[in-house]
Amino acid sequence: MNSQNLWQGADRRIYMNEVGTRDGLQMEQAFVPTEDKIALVNALSAAGLSKIEVTAFVSPTAIPALRDGEVVMREIARRPGTVYTALVPNVRGAERAIEALTDELNLVMSVSETHNLCNLRMQRSQSFAALLQVIATAQQAGVPVNVSLSCCFGCPMEGDVPQAEVLAWVQRFADLGVQGVTLCDTTGMAYPSQVHALVAAYKARWPQLGLTLHFHNTRGMALANVLASIDAGADRFDASIGGLGGCPYAPGASGNACTEEIVHALELMGYDTGVDLEQVVAAARALPALIGHDTPSQIAKAGCRLDLHQPPADFAALRERALARA
Amino acid sequence: MNSQNLWQGADRRIYMNEVGTRDGLQMEQAFVPTEDKIALVNALSAAGLSKIEVTAFVSPTAIPALRDGEVVMREIARRPGTVYTALVPNVRGAERAIEALTDELNLVMSVSETHNLCNLRMQRSQSFAALLQVIATAQQAGVPVNVSLSCCFGCPMEGDVPQAEVLAWVQRFADLGVQGVTLCDTTGMAYPSQVHALVAAYKARWPQLGLTLHFHNTRGMALANVLASIDAGADRFDASIGGLGGCPYAPGASGNACTEEIVHALELMGYDTGVDLEQVVAAARALPALIGHDTPSQIAKAGCRLDLHQPPADFAALRERALARA
Repeated sequence: MNSQNLWQGADRRIYMNEVGTRDGLQMEQAFVPTEDKIALVNALSAAGLSKIEVTAFVSPTAIPALRDGEVVMREIARRPGTVYTALVPNVRGAERAIEALTDELNLVMSVSETHNLCNLRMQRSQSFAALLQVIATAQQAGVPVNVSLSCCFGCPMEGDVPQAEVLAWVQRFADLGVQGVTLCDTTGMAYPSQVHALVAAYKARWPQLGLTLHFHNTRGMALANVLASIDAGADRFDASIGGLGGCPYAPGASGNACTEEIVHALELMGYDTGVDLEQVVAAARALPALIGHDTPSQIAKAGCRLDLHQPPADFAALRERALARA
Repeated sequence: MNSQNLWQGADRRIYMNEVGTRDGLQMEQAFVPTEDKIALVNALSAAGLSKIEVTAFVSPTAIPALRDGEVVMREIARRPGTVYTALVPNVRGAERAIEALTDELNLVMSVSETHNLCNLRMQRSQSFAALLQVIATAQQAGVPVNVSLSCCFGCPMEGDVPQAEVLAWVQRFADLGVQGVTLCDTTGMAYPSQVHALVAAYKARWPQLGLTLHFHNTRGMALANVLASIDAGADRFDASIGGLGGCPYAPGASGNACTEEIVHALELMGYDTGVDLEQVVAAARALPALIGHDTPSQIAKAGCRLDLHQPPADFAALRERALARA
């Protein structure tokens, strides 16, 4: 275990990446109006998120929910210090993203052959060849690249993915000079022991390569996995406002790790996320009006731990009766 | 931190106490038929739970949902090694429980004056005086006593409860010779740093007194709190099948720590809970038919991490198309 005490954050900095505006909204049936998306990104910027995955530069027929990527990326108010990233599947997307002044390109492929075929309609080797060109395009433009590797903690169709297989994919991208890698638990199969071991192995092998962890709360383990990651040396996490998101290949799956739940817990533990909890909770509570349904966020429902409740209306009377019996 | 590695369970024994049949069912609007309650307890016994809080011996008008306590306690099939406990509020309840051959009496009061008044209609000093008589009754009959202290991690009306106040209440009951104390997070206010500190303080002061932790998942921290407890030396946890339960004084609160979620995570981490996960998941999935609504259990919905899914029906075709492009 880490020599520092996991349970005492002691103001250690944890970086929170918001993915709800991309990974969350892309799953929604309802098209969230462009001005509402911009307002949401602006609210998340103001709340202090370190990085925001604003949108995706994909085909508008593939993901109609995000067909307004250019406008959103161009019209958001950029907070100094926040990185505005976007998902990019190919060179065309990269060009669009770079033209829209995206700070960082986020590339995606899966370490599971079956999941990659289902999700991206390509073999992994084909995806890698395509991303090679995207990385070259980004590097020519001087734009940083992050690679999100899906299914690093298991594939919902194949099952376990060996740690060595995950690390081999990280190595291929490290060799290309990308700035960071995100190890994604795409369908909530990660568990703390496994997370601790993989993060420790990554940090030992690539102490300088950016590392982000992306968890889903499908089986209630997202926060525990975040803590296992911190204990193994990680300090950067994807999370989604309201816990939006999911995976079409894993029925019954709840969403991404919920931004306000993770921030709420980490701040109580003394970590410094840089995030204003009140503002993200307000943003989470505004989501149902935008997307037309409730979110999985427990903090949006129950409030923060010291959001106190009034005693029942008859409290004075029942206290009187109790005292009279003394 | 504990000298043992939290992330590697290494077959360390963790004891799971099922509270769904009492703490869960008492909140339900629907009366679960007596024979279904008995079948549920029997299923939980067969699944290997260490202790089961079968029912409560309270006034049938106070908690009509549990008005069949005697019959249930008498007719369950007792598995050797499982402890069958029941909630008991007063001497009359203790006598009924003892007559029904209850293995252990579980007493409840709150460390928060406001919560105790709301929940038990008594001052804490009045509750303590009443429990003193219950403990004497139990001790005369040679029946072990556990005391569940509500609001040990905060009161939803008063806010934080000082650790010294919690420990003072434990001391009063330790002085009376009870067998164990449960530190209850009645409305999901506990967070891992606080849990680690309180459990460590308890274990340092009362290394021999039984200790159980009772968490709610109101703000998504139940599993993280269990792990913090284990790291501080605890090994016994209350949890509720399906995540049933809640607290009427904390609107929006989701239920108790969910038995199958905690067991699923701990078993993956290499701990030995003695619980057959498949059997508790089956019991959880049978609950909606008994109580007339869905439960918060994420494992009941999503399945265990290696419950794999079939690729989509057109998988062979899309694979062909991908290969043709190579």
